[in-house]
Amino acid sequence: MVDEPGNGSARLKALLSRMPPVVAMGVAVERYVAGKLVLAAPLSVNVNDKGSAFGGSLVSLMTVAGWGLVTLQLHAAGLEGAEVYVADSQVRYLAPLRSDLQAESQLAQGQDWSKFLSTFRQRGRARIELSMQVPLPDGQPATEMRARYAAFAS
Amino acid sequence: MVDEPGNGSARLKALLSRMPPVVAMGVAVERYVAGKLVLAAPLSVNVNDKGSAFGGSLVSLMTVAGWGLVTLQLHAAGLEGAEVYVADSQVRYLAPLRSDLQAESQLAQGQDWSKFLSTFRQRGRARIELSMQVPLPDGQPATEMRARYAAFAS
Repeated sequence: MVDEPGNGSARLKALLSRMPPVVAMGVAVERYVAGKLVLAAPLSVNVNDKGSAFGGSLVSLMTVAGWGLVTLQLHAAGLEGAEVYVADSQVRYLAPLRSDLQAESQLAQGQDWSKFLSTFRQRGRARIELSMQVPLPDGQPATEMRARYAAFAS
Repeated sequence: MVDEPGNGSARLKALLSRMPPVVAMGVAVERYVAGKLVLAAPLSVNVNDKGSAFGGSLVSLMTVAGWGLVTLQLHAAGLEGAEVYVADSQVRYLAPLRSDLQAESQLAQGQDWSKFLSTFRQRGRARIELSMQVPLPDGQPATEMRARYAAFAS
């Protein structure tokens, strides 16, 4: 794993290890740098009847990549008690993936972490939109997702 | 399981049992009647860090419920060689679910199986839009999905 020291991904790994479906998918935190979180999962436990990645696993991995990124941002801002939920999502499946899965999450265009965090501090709740992708081995997208996440003070 | 004799759901169960992520989620075919397929999965293996159903599991179960319904329709029409993929989806997470998961799939409004099947027979490919829901124990929706599926002659 490539990581920036003290950037919170060790804590994220601990959180993910407490979610049985995430463990069953073999999800690993691959890297968290420059505002992008990358999760990985082996094809072997995420395969469909056709030998390619199961659509449900692709969307699960992207969903948790976004969830993890919002969680990391909140932790970095000292807002450790926040609960993060996915609110809605749109997914496009563009090409079958026949190798291990990697999902990258980042802010969607026009979105802003500092605005999200200040809204959360003021109101105890805030929403943010993220953009996720699972690349093919050649870098082209296999699957794309946009999703909104809601954080609530617990 | 409630079932209509010879309606193909035994074959669907066999297909699902060959998909490791579906097996890991504990997915069972609950019933297939009146054009609706209902799949179930226990909360215990699909739980998030907050004790409610993991968003990824909810969307996975709905995705495979739709995939299964398209597959059953193709099989019933004697089109057993068709391969079915999810093409795109939109999901809304409305309320956290703190009990076992059930996902129902059915045709989206304005969609028509006979048109889908005749297009598939003519062109060797066709698309259909479905509507999925995971209900709360009181029958209100926890999660709603619309998704398009593509079938290809293999």
